[in-house]
Amino acid sequence: MNVENGKQEIEAPNHVTIKGMLGLLMANTDANCNGKKVISLGIGDPTAYSCFYTTSAAQEAVVDSLRSAKFNGYSPTVGLPQTRKALAEYLSRDLPYKLSSDDVYVTAGCTQAIEMALSILARPGANILLPRPCFPIYGLCAAFRHIEARYFDLLPENGWEVDLNAVKNLADHNTVAVVIINPGNPCGNVYTYQHLEKIAETAKRLGIVVISDEVYGHLAFGANPFVPMGVFGSIAPVLTLGSLSKRWLVPGWRLGWLVTTDPYGSLKSPKFVERLKKYCDICGGPATFIQAAVPTIVEQTQEVFFKKTINILKQTSDICDRKIKDIPCLSCPHKPEGSMAFMVKVNISMLKDISDDIDFCFKLAKEECVIILPGLAVGLKNWVRITFALEPSALEEALERVKSFCQRHSY
Amino acid sequence: MNVENGKQEIEAPNHVTIKGMLGLLMANTDANCNGKKVISLGIGDPTAYSCFYTTSAAQEAVVDSLRSAKFNGYSPTVGLPQTRKALAEYLSRDLPYKLSSDDVYVTAGCTQAIEMALSILARPGANILLPRPCFPIYGLCAAFRHIEARYFDLLPENGWEVDLNAVKNLADHNTVAVVIINPGNPCGNVYTYQHLEKIAETAKRLGIVVISDEVYGHLAFGANPFVPMGVFGSIAPVLTLGSLSKRWLVPGWRLGWLVTTDPYGSLKSPKFVERLKKYCDICGGPATFIQAAVPTIVEQTQEVFFKKTINILKQTSDICDRKIKDIPCLSCPHKPEGSMAFMVKVNISMLKDISDDIDFCFKLAKEECVIILPGLAVGLKNWVRITFALEPSALEEALERVKSFCQRHSY
Repeated sequence: MNVENGKQEIEAPNHVTIKGMLGLLMANTDANCNGKKVISLGIGDPTAYSCFYTTSAAQEAVVDSLRSAKFNGYSPTVGLPQTRKALAEYLSRDLPYKLSSDDVYVTAGCTQAIEMALSILARPGANILLPRPCFPIYGLCAAFRHIEARYFDLLPENGWEVDLNAVKNLADHNTVAVVIINPGNPCGNVYTYQHLEKIAETAKRLGIVVISDEVYGHLAFGANPFVPMGVFGSIAPVLTLGSLSKRWLVPGWRLGWLVTTDPYGSLKSPKFVERLKKYCDICGGPATFIQAAVPTIVEQTQEVFFKKTINILKQTSDICDRKIKDIPCLSCPHKPEGSMAFMVKVNISMLKDISDDIDFCFKLAKEECVIILPGLAVGLKNWVRITFALEPSALEEALERVKSFCQRHSY
Repeated sequence: MNVENGKQEIEAPNHVTIKGMLGLLMANTDANCNGKKVISLGIGDPTAYSCFYTTSAAQEAVVDSLRSAKFNGYSPTVGLPQTRKALAEYLSRDLPYKLSSDDVYVTAGCTQAIEMALSILARPGANILLPRPCFPIYGLCAAFRHIEARYFDLLPENGWEVDLNAVKNLADHNTVAVVIINPGNPCGNVYTYQHLEKIAETAKRLGIVVISDEVYGHLAFGANPFVPMGVFGSIAPVLTLGSLSKRWLVPGWRLGWLVTTDPYGSLKSPKFVERLKKYCDICGGPATFIQAAVPTIVEQTQEVFFKKTINILKQTSDICDRKIKDIPCLSCPHKPEGSMAFMVKVNISMLKDISDDIDFCFKLAKEECVIILPGLAVGLKNWVRITFALEPSALEEALERVKSFCQRHSY
């Protein structure tokens, strides 16, 4: 490689990232927006709003841990023993069996857990089954690790359930895993116990691992309660990914986990564990003093804090549902019942001068200073993803502006 | 892949890690050690000793940042703008040109910076030139990314300088970079201005990037001052890796950086920058509130804090030099003058029942409860790496025990 002559042979994978797309949209808002404030329904980071401020129990646990001066040093690269133990106990509350500390690998947020899951499964010729629509980090990660991504549809008319026939048809002997995200990002759905069981049975038949992204775990406010995929770990081995980010409203703390939720131990073969541990050695995980606060955080956070978040998300998702019904060119086949975002279909044929979802979002940003993610960024053309984790009044105003925008551009 | 039948095809790269080796040694100490306390000269983490406690300015900057409630959310994946700016200014102090914020990518410690540097340079057939001895994460990382590692010798009799002829002979058109670690880990040396310039000229001739690991930057207490490799960024493009870990004595905070130290911009080609940025998207970097404290940390840390660390390291490295001279079977070709560790040669032929460095370290751990890293873990058989970043009295005692051990096992 001759970098000096500019003959860079290195290319970035050709993937749109959510942050990249939102940055472009933000740059497209008019400088003063006619006095309007920019409102972003773009990203699942609610911390800009005071109603989504984390519990002081969590914050002060981290302060105490830092000030103790005991946790400025390295932790074991798999995580502090007390952190692994606390997370094993926390996650076991919802399982029919007990996880052990050894099942838990502490990561720099769920992002690093995704990266770790895909990297340890990577091998020449491997492919992975990803949902469409999908949180795009999965595709980007697969590209960096030379894993072929094969997409199965989520079915909007069936509550965004996995098209299990597509999964079966896509899989072959080089398939290493199927990914599900539950509660759903970008779809805002929550899978039933029965559907998760079917996914596990399908994975079993195919001899593959289920990667279950539960970063929005417990953020369910509709008819279906949140059921962790690990409940079916005895049917097929599950790598459960999660973090404090969403439930504790601290995405910037970068405290996540990858867990082998697998009571029969298929993922506990010495070689697999050795590979996982060595991978942790090259990762650079989360800060030791934040890890050290985790036992206090999971033990001392009051139920009332979690309930407050759920109540606001229920309220804001209801606002979305009501407002979207009032805009003819938009439709939502499945009312949001979990996570912090959902998918809305744009009927382009009803709009006179909008060519597609990208055009819709760029014009909306420019004219109304409202940021919404084009569906293409998550693999679904002519849909948009709307995040509802914001102050109710801000959401109301943003959707009012979307309505004006749509009226102005409709036939 | 059929994980259910235990037919795991996945293997871990066959590399010893320092932590893995030290864990085995620790497990080999006798349960009560005849009343002796275990003393580890094994790892470059001084935070167990109160004389290596970080400055309260740094600690309170992080507390303030956390309690401000402004930094619980995501940062841009390349790092917060104010953090990038502060690090660009901090690193520019020692350079003949100014870095810009865009040169700086904030990482989860130097470990993630290493992983990032190797991953973005990886491509089919690529090889990388690594020093021997070497911090083993480089070899492990290269193995995970399918980059061939080729080793050139560091020359103990020349102050552990790079064997530049070996570098020239090892390189070919698939060579992507040469790695140097300065101040040296595991060798404890500090390169002269002249030698660094020669390395840059060699890299220029070969058309490759220099990866300069400066995690121990500024920790120099001998004749040679610390000179960052970026000084020669106008000769060959340099990726500078570093972190707060060592100079601020906070390895557990996981706040590092990868910097394109490259005034002519070979590393600023749009494709390279695009690839770097996308790689940041999959990484899961450091906590936002720790990043937000960096401007205060680099501005407000008093010189007296840095001097105190240097003075203790000077004192403890002198203790090592004096004590090792007093042990006939050990020799040190180059007195430590930087970092927190150095290499000592074991004359196995003088020992009656010790077969090699591994045997030396395991028996030492068992009999004396002193942990020292076998040289094989850093690629140099029948050497050992000794860390001197500990309380002087503990170091004195540990080396006394090493002396007894050597006397007992000598002919």
